[in-house]
Amino acid sequence: MNLAREAAVLAILAASVSCTSVPPLAAPPTSVPQLATPAPELEAYRSDVEALVREALVKGRSFALLAELCLSAPKRLSGSKGAARAVAWAERTMRSIGLSNVRLEPVLVPHWERGETESLRVLDADGLPRERLSILALGGSVATPPGGVSAEVMVVTSFEELRARAAQARGKIVLFNRPMDPAQHDCFAAYAGAVDQRGRGASEASRVGARAALVRSMTMALDDHPHTGALRYDEDVAPLPAAALSTLAADRLAARVAAGERVRVNLQLSCRTLPDVLSHNVVGEIPGTGIEREIVVVGGHLDAWDVGHGAHDDGAGCAHCLEAARLILARGLQPRRTIRVVLFMNEENGARGAQAYYEGHLDELERHVLALESDAGGFTPRGFATDANPRAFESLRAIVELLDSASANALRVGGGGVDIGPLARSGVPLVGFRPDDERYFDHHHCERDTLDNVHPRELALGSGAIAGLLHVIANLPQPLRRNPQPVPAPSR
Amino acid sequence: MNLAREAAVLAILAASVSCTSVPPLAAPPTSVPQLATPAPELEAYRSDVEALVREALVKGRSFALLAELCLSAPKRLSGSKGAARAVAWAERTMRSIGLSNVRLEPVLVPHWERGETESLRVLDADGLPRERLSILALGGSVATPPGGVSAEVMVVTSFEELRARAAQARGKIVLFNRPMDPAQHDCFAAYAGAVDQRGRGASEASRVGARAALVRSMTMALDDHPHTGALRYDEDVAPLPAAALSTLAADRLAARVAAGERVRVNLQLSCRTLPDVLSHNVVGEIPGTGIEREIVVVGGHLDAWDVGHGAHDDGAGCAHCLEAARLILARGLQPRRTIRVVLFMNEENGARGAQAYYEGHLDELERHVLALESDAGGFTPRGFATDANPRAFESLRAIVELLDSASANALRVGGGGVDIGPLARSGVPLVGFRPDDERYFDHHHCERDTLDNVHPRELALGSGAIAGLLHVIANLPQPLRRNPQPVPAPSR
Repeated sequence: MNLAREAAVLAILAASVSCTSVPPLAAPPTSVPQLATPAPELEAYRSDVEALVREALVKGRSFALLAELCLSAPKRLSGSKGAARAVAWAERTMRSIGLSNVRLEPVLVPHWERGETESLRVLDADGLPRERLSILALGGSVATPPGGVSAEVMVVTSFEELRARAAQARGKIVLFNRPMDPAQHDCFAAYAGAVDQRGRGASEASRVGARAALVRSMTMALDDHPHTGALRYDEDVAPLPAAALSTLAADRLAARVAAGERVRVNLQLSCRTLPDVLSHNVVGEIPGTGIEREIVVVGGHLDAWDVGHGAHDDGAGCAHCLEAARLILARGLQPRRTIRVVLFMNEENGARGAQAYYEGHLDELERHVLALESDAGGFTPRGFATDANPRAFESLRAIVELLDSASANALRVGGGGVDIGPLARSGVPLVGFRPDDERYFDHHHCERDTLDNVHPRELALGSGAIAGLLHVIANLPQPLRRNPQPVPAPSR
Repeated sequence: MNLAREAAVLAILAASVSCTSVPPLAAPPTSVPQLATPAPELEAYRSDVEALVREALVKGRSFALLAELCLSAPKRLSGSKGAARAVAWAERTMRSIGLSNVRLEPVLVPHWERGETESLRVLDADGLPRERLSILALGGSVATPPGGVSAEVMVVTSFEELRARAAQARGKIVLFNRPMDPAQHDCFAAYAGAVDQRGRGASEASRVGARAALVRSMTMALDDHPHTGALRYDEDVAPLPAAALSTLAADRLAARVAAGERVRVNLQLSCRTLPDVLSHNVVGEIPGTGIEREIVVVGGHLDAWDVGHGAHDDGAGCAHCLEAARLILARGLQPRRTIRVVLFMNEENGARGAQAYYEGHLDELERHVLALESDAGGFTPRGFATDANPRAFESLRAIVELLDSASANALRVGGGGVDIGPLARSGVPLVGFRPDDERYFDHHHCERDTLDNVHPRELALGSGAIAGLLHVIANLPQPLRRNPQPVPAPSR
């Protein structure tokens, strides 16, 4: 999950700490019927929902699907051969589980490669390399010159501090070292409060004349695993090479600098950006019966960072979506509305798949009744977050209470996710799957995001929960009330 | 957590799948005031509760306390030197965190030792040992004769099947191979549905003339780690040696038998039961101010099986209780009622500490307003379970909703735990801490129950949740309504 690009989503996530408040959105009239669904009416779905969860636990394929993806395409950053393999796997898998209208929808994606050289070394008084620290180049970073950049480290914890000490920053390598706030019990909110350093640190450092940027890894774990992720360069400054430093390495460097030592380091990166590559979103459907023109979207992203297996981010989301659809088919539950599985490309470093889906389906977005995204890992479900208007929120809350057997009965105010984000412009209510998040950032964007760190039952419960929610939404007599449209849809 | 001894608790747990129903208990008048606490009144506690959780996350000592226990006494089965070290650590730690009236309360405990020899080998046609399978003797088992027991394996999945096939069982080694039901989303309920095989299997096998008992490990994980746990011998049958087999080994054996093969094995155990040993419950208090005669108990158990570190079972519970008290002291929150921390001895194979506390405090049980136990692991909180009467349940539900920031806002109907179980006889409402349980039985009673499998933030959230609940209960204007007393308290 790359939230750097979606500040608005982050702000909503940061605010989503209570399940009792509802979003302060007006609910203007639209052309869709407006009835909130009464809870007793929903009880009729309970046995189906519980059967879906049971099927997921007893005869489910969640972990098998995830294992296939992780083993056949562990490295699948946009533009890579692994990404192409993941697309082929997704298409093949959608057909094998019985989805209809399976197709590839084109997306032109960025193609960044890490390269062979990636090192950060502390220099001794004679300028000779000594201790080697654990880093990963940030996605999108430029390379250093051959031989690297050697300079003194300056440590800051905010852009404000950097600007206030701008004169000192000239010629330095700036280490952005503000930790994710451990007081935040919501780890995504803690991430949202720190990730500006990764996304914008290099540009801010460039603006004050620094030579490179280092960023404390976005995790609360104290260990030696660096966590990568995307940066964006502002257009008005020279791009600086930038890398993530493990939290332990960041603490060690910062402690020495705080003790008054002048710490010089040498940073070498050989990463590069190649020409854009044609890739694809992968789409398949369970066609509806009766109100098949109305569409419920469920999605995750196929691409992943080039470290670990992308198991939690977002192999788990892909497995959730595919398995949820498979469960509905396996139970013989013919939905009234069409359920559309979309496995997006390029969530991590561009969100071009999200934009392509939005632009490619403008003429039917009015018929999208809900979009659900799973991009928060494969841990035990807690429930869902949504940006839905108050009336739809109340309907969703009553539906989510049916998901008790999947431990997914909490509904909170929050964002749906990066890939379905653009659909908000057309008033589609967005829902994000929310599993337990305490371990997520231990694995996120780092070597530890591997298959063996996903628990088969936890993953299966997520699939069951999502299947249950999809089943109810796809069969409700009336669709949910649409959201107000904050941004007018562009004319075609 | 050893539930074998407490069938009643298990039955309640098995039924505790809904948070919306309340227990069908009558609520007879007692001498204690009966007001349910209105939710708005509780809002005054919210800021304190949130501060406790924040303190637990930011400056907490949960994981440090657990690490101390696991490193100083990783093996601490009742009667062992490790158990004595754990008692000494607990006493020292209670004093160091500032508890008052710290004392050791005597408990005479069983002393069972695993011994050096523990093997299960498949025999070939010539009676020579071939494949070696992973086992752990069950706690309390007798040894085999020197050279072991060699016999053919018979596989059953229930006592009913064993009785129906009693004639075939004579002279055999019976493998009880009914898995924990994966359809149960509540893993404790799945455990409750299978653990009779471990607790009573050896006696049932003896009754039909078998020579030894093997039991499929109580876990849903398919791996090669056997999980031990206590058995009990019925007094009317000869005790048979009994061991737990890893799930993979059980599956392999069962598959061969199912294919028609006559599989002979040799089981060797050198475990033994030594004379009882004097040990202790460890007790300390935060004395109340104002209504100090009323007591809120919070407890976990110090003893643990002799494999792994007893990190989740129940080092985590000990850390929760000690840290919850420390947090309340650290925040300067002087409770009106007395908060009493009880670290029980011998939960795993006898529950003698539970009985000793009950018998030793009979004269003040009327003044116990609540007992809370943490013995379900150190994972992310979900909330609490309780046997409280409907009025107290509603008060507790409103209190638990204050624990949202610790992810602990769910209250369900269920048991408190083995160690506080006897207090129910005096009408004390019991509460059990309920963390996420999907991974618990992967670690329970096996080599995998180690410190590194506990997540520091997950553990800290549990401590914060428990501290918050204790704080409110210890300060409520009126105590909770007591439960009806199902069993009259014995006269002294």
